[in-house]
Amino acid sequence: MHIEDIQTPQDIKNLNVDELNELAEEIRSFLVRSLSKTGGHLSSNLGVVELTLALHYVFDSPKDKIFFDVGHQSYVHKILTGRAKCFDTLRQYEGLSGFQKRKESEHDVWEAGHSSTSLSAALGFALARDLNHEKYNVIPVIGDGAMASGMSFEALNQIGSEKRGMIIIFNDNNMSISGNVGAFSQACTHLRASKGYTSLKKYLSSRLSSSKLGDKVLSTMKDMKDSIKHTVVDGSIFTELGLDYIGPINGHDTGEMIKVLSTLKNHESPIVVHIITKKGKGYQFAENDTEGNWHGVSKFNVETGKPLTSNAYRHLDWSSILSESLLRMAANNPDIVAITPAMSKGSKLDKFARIYPDRFFDCGIAEEHAVTLSGAMALEHKSVFLSIYSSFLQRAYDQINHDLGRMDIPVVIGVDRSGLVGDDGETHHGVFDISMLYSIPNLIIAMPKDCGEAQDLMYTAFDQKKHPFLLRIPRGTCEYEEKEFTRLTIGSWEKYQIKETSKVTIITYGPDVDRIIQKAKINELEITVINARFIKPLDELMLSEVLKAKEPLIVYESDMLHGGLSSAILAFNNDYDFNKKIIRIGIKDHYVPQGSLPQLRKREGIDLETLFNEIEKHLK
Amino acid sequence: MHIEDIQTPQDIKNLNVDELNELAEEIRSFLVRSLSKTGGHLSSNLGVVELTLALHYVFDSPKDKIFFDVGHQSYVHKILTGRAKCFDTLRQYEGLSGFQKRKESEHDVWEAGHSSTSLSAALGFALARDLNHEKYNVIPVIGDGAMASGMSFEALNQIGSEKRGMIIIFNDNNMSISGNVGAFSQACTHLRASKGYTSLKKYLSSRLSSSKLGDKVLSTMKDMKDSIKHTVVDGSIFTELGLDYIGPINGHDTGEMIKVLSTLKNHESPIVVHIITKKGKGYQFAENDTEGNWHGVSKFNVETGKPLTSNAYRHLDWSSILSESLLRMAANNPDIVAITPAMSKGSKLDKFARIYPDRFFDCGIAEEHAVTLSGAMALEHKSVFLSIYSSFLQRAYDQINHDLGRMDIPVVIGVDRSGLVGDDGETHHGVFDISMLYSIPNLIIAMPKDCGEAQDLMYTAFDQKKHPFLLRIPRGTCEYEEKEFTRLTIGSWEKYQIKETSKVTIITYGPDVDRIIQKAKINELEITVINARFIKPLDELMLSEVLKAKEPLIVYESDMLHGGLSSAILAFNNDYDFNKKIIRIGIKDHYVPQGSLPQLRKREGIDLETLFNEIEKHLK
Repeated sequence: MHIEDIQTPQDIKNLNVDELNELAEEIRSFLVRSLSKTGGHLSSNLGVVELTLALHYVFDSPKDKIFFDVGHQSYVHKILTGRAKCFDTLRQYEGLSGFQKRKESEHDVWEAGHSSTSLSAALGFALARDLNHEKYNVIPVIGDGAMASGMSFEALNQIGSEKRGMIIIFNDNNMSISGNVGAFSQACTHLRASKGYTSLKKYLSSRLSSSKLGDKVLSTMKDMKDSIKHTVVDGSIFTELGLDYIGPINGHDTGEMIKVLSTLKNHESPIVVHIITKKGKGYQFAENDTEGNWHGVSKFNVETGKPLTSNAYRHLDWSSILSESLLRMAANNPDIVAITPAMSKGSKLDKFARIYPDRFFDCGIAEEHAVTLSGAMALEHKSVFLSIYSSFLQRAYDQINHDLGRMDIPVVIGVDRSGLVGDDGETHHGVFDISMLYSIPNLIIAMPKDCGEAQDLMYTAFDQKKHPFLLRIPRGTCEYEEKEFTRLTIGSWEKYQIKETSKVTIITYGPDVDRIIQKAKINELEITVINARFIKPLDELMLSEVLKAKEPLIVYESDMLHGGLSSAILAFNNDYDFNKKIIRIGIKDHYVPQGSLPQLRKREGIDLETLFNEIEKHLK
Repeated sequence: MHIEDIQTPQDIKNLNVDELNELAEEIRSFLVRSLSKTGGHLSSNLGVVELTLALHYVFDSPKDKIFFDVGHQSYVHKILTGRAKCFDTLRQYEGLSGFQKRKESEHDVWEAGHSSTSLSAALGFALARDLNHEKYNVIPVIGDGAMASGMSFEALNQIGSEKRGMIIIFNDNNMSISGNVGAFSQACTHLRASKGYTSLKKYLSSRLSSSKLGDKVLSTMKDMKDSIKHTVVDGSIFTELGLDYIGPINGHDTGEMIKVLSTLKNHESPIVVHIITKKGKGYQFAENDTEGNWHGVSKFNVETGKPLTSNAYRHLDWSSILSESLLRMAANNPDIVAITPAMSKGSKLDKFARIYPDRFFDCGIAEEHAVTLSGAMALEHKSVFLSIYSSFLQRAYDQINHDLGRMDIPVVIGVDRSGLVGDDGETHHGVFDISMLYSIPNLIIAMPKDCGEAQDLMYTAFDQKKHPFLLRIPRGTCEYEEKEFTRLTIGSWEKYQIKETSKVTIITYGPDVDRIIQKAKINELEITVINARFIKPLDELMLSEVLKAKEPLIVYESDMLHGGLSSAILAFNNDYDFNKKIIRIGIKDHYVPQGSLPQLRKREGIDLETLFNEIEKHLK
């Protein structure tokens, strides 16, 4: 069977287990080949090939609702629902999404990008189904990392008491993005080793020796449903919460999964099906990866496993620039600790974790808890660095406000991946954090223009010891050179005038500062560029000067317009009676899709060309 | 012992159990008497009298950190730490807080107001303690409702793997605010009935027959610690998560609690101590309350249990106005469902729950889950009303953005208690929601000026079926009259001109609209009042007219200034080149403390007097 020929899941329903296993191998090879050219989430998808085949073999999508928590492991599902031919556009502008998308296919019944929403959605579907007197299966697929997050627990708590029929596929690879942490994961270790399922397996084997599982065989399985109840093992935390549990089941044994899932069709109460999978299965480099290097990949050489792109000479990830600064400070300050909600790799805190294992804490996917934990540690005089991606920080709004802001606790939060991130799209762009946070009292929000300023802002953040300090850094890299730390004045901006005279002023922040200066220098433009490295508080003195001056003022941001820096400037401008017209460039009131940064900036009208066209108007 | 004479917890350390029990009765009577005059959280405090006495008897606050989740059950703790004499100022402006407050006492080591932060804080303290090579006990006290919230689970997940010493007092009254819901609560029912603790109890009894527990007796208890390990029962979900468990223990048996807690001093790993308490214990009306009427009370008659205040004639709570509208619509629309995160009483959805039990869902304290659940139900064509208090909505920022906003799902959220709420103070004022939400695409945000408009906005919210619709209502009551529903145009404002000529325009929203009109009519002021009932989207046509006009414009809000309505108006004013000076009244960049609404509005400069003084300036 040619992968590109699969139009709907119906196309695999006539295959026998051997043929399904053959298809699994083809899908694996397709995924490795295809992602080596586009990049994407590799390991998690290699892990769920047989599982996804079994699900689509047994259930009838889209009537039965199959959906994946987060959704980055839905590539096989996409292949089986007619989208293999679009994989060369994966995560590209107007191309195939790296997550499930309702607009992309009727088989994508739910969509996400952030973790742990699938169980809440599953209960919502099940409740609506029952109220609507409909009959279908609800099948969320959720990994062990996402299962341990608070939101999943909230959903399980209600699922266990509502008792609506649903089949929760607990995809346990004991990995999350890199290693898993926490007591729940340890509890799963016991489950993984439990023998309770053996008897059921034997029973099933005795009844079903054929590897061909046609309708006839399936019908004979219906009378086995009752027997399952008796063989369900004590599923620990799940049974405690009132859910049925079956497992563990080998997630690479297609036949076995089909047998079990078939017996669970229209199961009338919630059941957790514990499937053990191997992340990266079938591709050696990914399979041997214990650090999460193959979770999300850029283009790579299939034979060597080597990435085809690398950082430019002397360039480091922004995350590394912060973590290197942290390491330097930590050497002289034993009070410094680092905390991450499951992102030690992405936030480049793994080196810190190796050097200071006692001062490093991975909370798992638990942004809410991570923020409040940080606050309590800071009250006991620890100097806390908490790194969270901007879009995941959204999960901790209340903790930043109610705990850090209100008690005015000096935690330093590295807001990683802020601004547009590119190919992960709508759910991952870090463009909301400024608007979300600006009205919270006591916060300091800053963003460096370059590597040197990043080091100084890190130093300043730890040195001030008065307020919660949010230090935004973008995705990508920056030229790195270690420098001596300089304490910056909180709320101070810097002004760069290109020529002796100036006709336009631009206020901006982040790496755009230098890009604008560079371009203006080359073109010898009579402009002034202000580096608003402190987004909150404002440099009121410098701002007053600029607002008083006659020359046009542009505030240029690549984040959401409403509630951002230009909003704060407009308020100052109005309240102190400057009443100056301000030209505002930023993201308007809509979500930004996936695409390369240049494509997206162009689309949103926040590219440098748009800016300089605007500047030119005022230079004439 | 006179309650007002207690200066520090040291003062109770020499009492014997009988004397402690006497003191407990005095404290109960003091609480009932005192709260009958001031109002406050009664039932939960009556439930923890003996528990709090036992904690302060055994542990050494503030060295040992005793703190209460949410904190509204910390009144007894306040009494034992020298604050009884301040209870006549409870929850009043500049008076005693209804929660723990670090600035109020060195014995208040953590503070909250929102649920389920205590376990994260406990781990933060324990980690810092161990890093600092200090030695003290960390003792969070958390109820069964708060324990079932996602954030608590995130903390337990890390507590169970970090294994730092702490004593988690699980205060189980099986109530939350009103009845408890969810599978976790059901799991606790089994624990409550478990017999495993009996043997330990017998053992302790045989060793300690004296009711006087002096230092000498305590020292003999140390060698009992090991024995506890052997008598710890299977604590189900807690032991699954790697925590020790002991219980259940009668929370009104002071002697028994002292015995058990004494043996746990400096316990080297985390242990859950399961204490069964009776909410409202000792005050008949509160004790018999199953609906949560005595959770938070206004002034009442101690003998009759009757409240001393009541709603004015024909006045209803704002929450009731929404729920009555919902009931009327639900009668003709079987698709309407109602969802609450543990606030059926406060949100006045209890009547809906009685009439439509199949269409009502209480999620427990789980705002995150509640929002996403609502989204999935709405995708399956249910018309969802989700009621959440404004300040608790902060917990669900990401779900509103990532799930509802991004997928543009038409859930109707009743944002209850928005604006200043008064005596609950900083943690409960619903003044952030507009700023927090405004930059999220696709949302509609509205607030009615009166009962009639509330009904029309409810109708409009359900009728539009396109976007997430947030309908803010304040705390308090409003004159109620049932009216026929009218569909309002989304984004439409209304203009009221008092006299034939107008010299000042005021844009505002909510109940202040009519208050301003009324006052202006009495004083025959030449002003125009615009009811910006849609905060997002703006009525751009009407706004353009106002911005074009010469007369001064005041935007008057009683929410946070940054990112609110006036921010949106400033942006429109600037971007469309009206460049009008706008006088903005609203809450500046700080937290607002507790107090009566008139006191707080005066303090913040958002009272009508301040507004009319401003108006007068422009009428001359």
